[in-house]
Amino acid sequence: MVENVADTPQAPVEDNRLNPMFVDDVVAALEAGDIERVRLLADPLHPADVADLMEQVEAVDRAALAAALGDKLDADAFAEMNDYVRDDLIDALEPQQVGDLVQQLDTDDAVAIIEDLDADDQREVLRSLPADDRAAIEEALSYPEESAGRVMQRELIAVPEHWTIGQVIDFLRENPDLATDFWEIFVVDTGHHPVGTMRLSWVLRTPRKVAVADVMQREQTLIPVDMDQEEVALRFQKYALISAAVTDATGRLVGVITVDDILHIIQEEAGEDILKLSGAGDGDVNEPVFETVKVRVRWLMVNLGTAILASLVIGLFAATIEQMVALAILMPIVASLGGNAGTQTMAVAVRALATNELTESNTSRQIGKEIKVALMNGAVIAIIVGLVAGLYFANAHLGWVIAVAMVGNILVAGLAGVLVPLTLDRFDIDPAVASSVFVTMTTDVMGFFLFLGLAAATGLTPAG
Amino acid sequence: MVENVADTPQAPVEDNRLNPMFVDDVVAALEAGDIERVRLLADPLHPADVADLMEQVEAVDRAALAAALGDKLDADAFAEMNDYVRDDLIDALEPQQVGDLVQQLDTDDAVAIIEDLDADDQREVLRSLPADDRAAIEEALSYPEESAGRVMQRELIAVPEHWTIGQVIDFLRENPDLATDFWEIFVVDTGHHPVGTMRLSWVLRTPRKVAVADVMQREQTLIPVDMDQEEVALRFQKYALISAAVTDATGRLVGVITVDDILHIIQEEAGEDILKLSGAGDGDVNEPVFETVKVRVRWLMVNLGTAILASLVIGLFAATIEQMVALAILMPIVASLGGNAGTQTMAVAVRALATNELTESNTSRQIGKEIKVALMNGAVIAIIVGLVAGLYFANAHLGWVIAVAMVGNILVAGLAGVLVPLTLDRFDIDPAVASSVFVTMTTDVMGFFLFLGLAAATGLTPAG
Repeated sequence: MVENVADTPQAPVEDNRLNPMFVDDVVAALEAGDIERVRLLADPLHPADVADLMEQVEAVDRAALAAALGDKLDADAFAEMNDYVRDDLIDALEPQQVGDLVQQLDTDDAVAIIEDLDADDQREVLRSLPADDRAAIEEALSYPEESAGRVMQRELIAVPEHWTIGQVIDFLRENPDLATDFWEIFVVDTGHHPVGTMRLSWVLRTPRKVAVADVMQREQTLIPVDMDQEEVALRFQKYALISAAVTDATGRLVGVITVDDILHIIQEEAGEDILKLSGAGDGDVNEPVFETVKVRVRWLMVNLGTAILASLVIGLFAATIEQMVALAILMPIVASLGGNAGTQTMAVAVRALATNELTESNTSRQIGKEIKVALMNGAVIAIIVGLVAGLYFANAHLGWVIAVAMVGNILVAGLAGVLVPLTLDRFDIDPAVASSVFVTMTTDVMGFFLFLGLAAATGLTPAG
Repeated sequence: MVENVADTPQAPVEDNRLNPMFVDDVVAALEAGDIERVRLLADPLHPADVADLMEQVEAVDRAALAAALGDKLDADAFAEMNDYVRDDLIDALEPQQVGDLVQQLDTDDAVAIIEDLDADDQREVLRSLPADDRAAIEEALSYPEESAGRVMQRELIAVPEHWTIGQVIDFLRENPDLATDFWEIFVVDTGHHPVGTMRLSWVLRTPRKVAVADVMQREQTLIPVDMDQEEVALRFQKYALISAAVTDATGRLVGVITVDDILHIIQEEAGEDILKLSGAGDGDVNEPVFETVKVRVRWLMVNLGTAILASLVIGLFAATIEQMVALAILMPIVASLGGNAGTQTMAVAVRALATNELTESNTSRQIGKEIKVALMNGAVIAIIVGLVAGLYFANAHLGWVIAVAMVGNILVAGLAGVLVPLTLDRFDIDPAVASSVFVTMTTDVMGFFLFLGLAAATGLTPAG
């Protein structure tokens, strides 16, 4: 019978999530000290679900759960775990125990665990490893963080061009030490430079006597070892790659990146933008409270600065407001809608920059489009706001002032929404990090200035 | 020599993007009517880059470019193209031509093109297809949009359990009509129900006489044909899948989903949230202006409603503001920082819900954490704002009022930021779509109410 890990009724896992009642059961067994039952419950779980279980229980229960799970909490489960939760658990282990876990993993997963340790622990864990594992991991750690060199595995299959398919198959069958899970076979020259690649399905469909050179595809996408992981992910996605060869500065084949690592990166990077835009840092639910406070308060301070700037603009018109309090009542509408319109444009621009859809070739077209959209949306909103405000306060002059200010601010918003991210990108600043602050600062300041300034300049009075 | 499509100096493609100078060259050749040169330039491009080129040129040049490219603009390039750009091009083709393109594609890519056509064109294109292609596509179209049935391909390799590895390899070599690109071989019983799966690397590493039953893995993740693509993507990511079997309601194997399709879905879904939160709809740079206006103006109207609500709250305190214009100057600070704090919390909650990290098991812990963070951040910001406002206006009472209102509003923001997305999620409303409006409405209204209300209630006067 097929065992479907996710769809059996009352399964511990439903819709890719651990069933909350299942988690409660485990916690109850844990609190009752019933280790047997914890193990029985956890037995059918996939390593990814063991990792989830560890994340779902309260922090105080994690050490006890880890002890109860024993071998079920294996290296694969550690590899799947949230960074914060994993670091907590790893901190409680001896370097020798960490070394044992790490040895069971591919280099990329091992590096992911070791790179987060502090320098002393890192040295001790590395010392506990066999020489060749240690060398591989030390080499990986020598590459910049978030580069291809950190993500790649060294375990790969490479064969010479002059072999036949039969020789390849025999080589694979006769060498038990080779990797068991791979998706492509790389063809290399005598200097270990990649010259081609074969998908396994091609190897399987080809008669034994055919030469490798006749099956392999010569064009292939190579990943330089120092390429940023975000670029690697875009390349995988664009060319629909399952795995890709990684080469060093001299063009030698040094590793392979497989798509399962890329899935994590794409989701992380795409999800990061939303968190960065809001100034929420990593935005990890498992982040300790104090870390979260530190990250967020920094952006709140920046926001405080821009809010004070906007207040100073209002202060310029204190006399006008004193004369006519309706202006104070209405001014947040102009700022708020400008902010919203700017955020819409900015979100589109930030995404388009991240996915390489907004480029030098189409920038001016995009700016032209945003001007058109802003004028149309501005007109619609201005007519409504102008009518509502004019009628409510029985003051046609006020209606005109707010309508004109609204069109102006939505136009400012459209321009800021596209120009701010573009400018940051040109200066190699991540547009997702800083755009939001600049855009809403611009729309707040300009919103108050246009509305109050126009009121003052046209001599608006409560009588209209 | 290795041809690296992306890294040769002066290549048309650099860092996964088309070189702007290359695009200019193509456009210049096109405008000069030099079809030969256009073809020469485009010759080395991958289908994904041909698609990019089509997106980068101005809309008016696309028909001419398509004509110049001829066969280079093949079915694969169409499959990679942005929906809006593709629809424009497809609209200009005869149904017979579309049919010819579609026949060259796997079912999933063919469906992606056909599902966007209007009903008449769809019928005509389907009529032009051979009976079996038509049946496969019609079946795919019978599944809901964005379900596994739309994303899967029907082309797959399935073998009976009683075969040996040798029989499998011979079967693959002797049947030229089978799929050429596949990553797993599925094992089925006589009723075509999946009973196991073999990665190709295992098949290659196993001697011919070994039975399939001894190599295959019995546990496998099955995808129900009606599962939403977002859930499918989460499952691929969680279990690091390269491909997965899709089964119908009776448990029969009907198709396979491969990870390259999932890469697109993950990036789309993760990127969508940022666009939804800002009310920017699809947020596609290629979306026609009028579509963009329609999508965005809808959210601006909603925002107008919430902004008017906030203004009504200010209106309640018109008399207090009239007496003391400093309140009008300062009130946007309280609202703005509350909005920012709420957006931070909301972004984290929306991402955590989308990635299944925020669940029933840890909701109360998360709310508790947000309260702590809000109190700490609120205290820091309140002290600064209180001091600045109190000193600037030489009014200690005013300093106290704004400080207390600020702590209150940041606490409201923290609660709204986590409770709004959670509540929407419980009611099966996408938290990314509606959260932002509710959160900022709450922080605006409460910000003005707390600050002005506190000023009025404590009898704040310009004299302090």
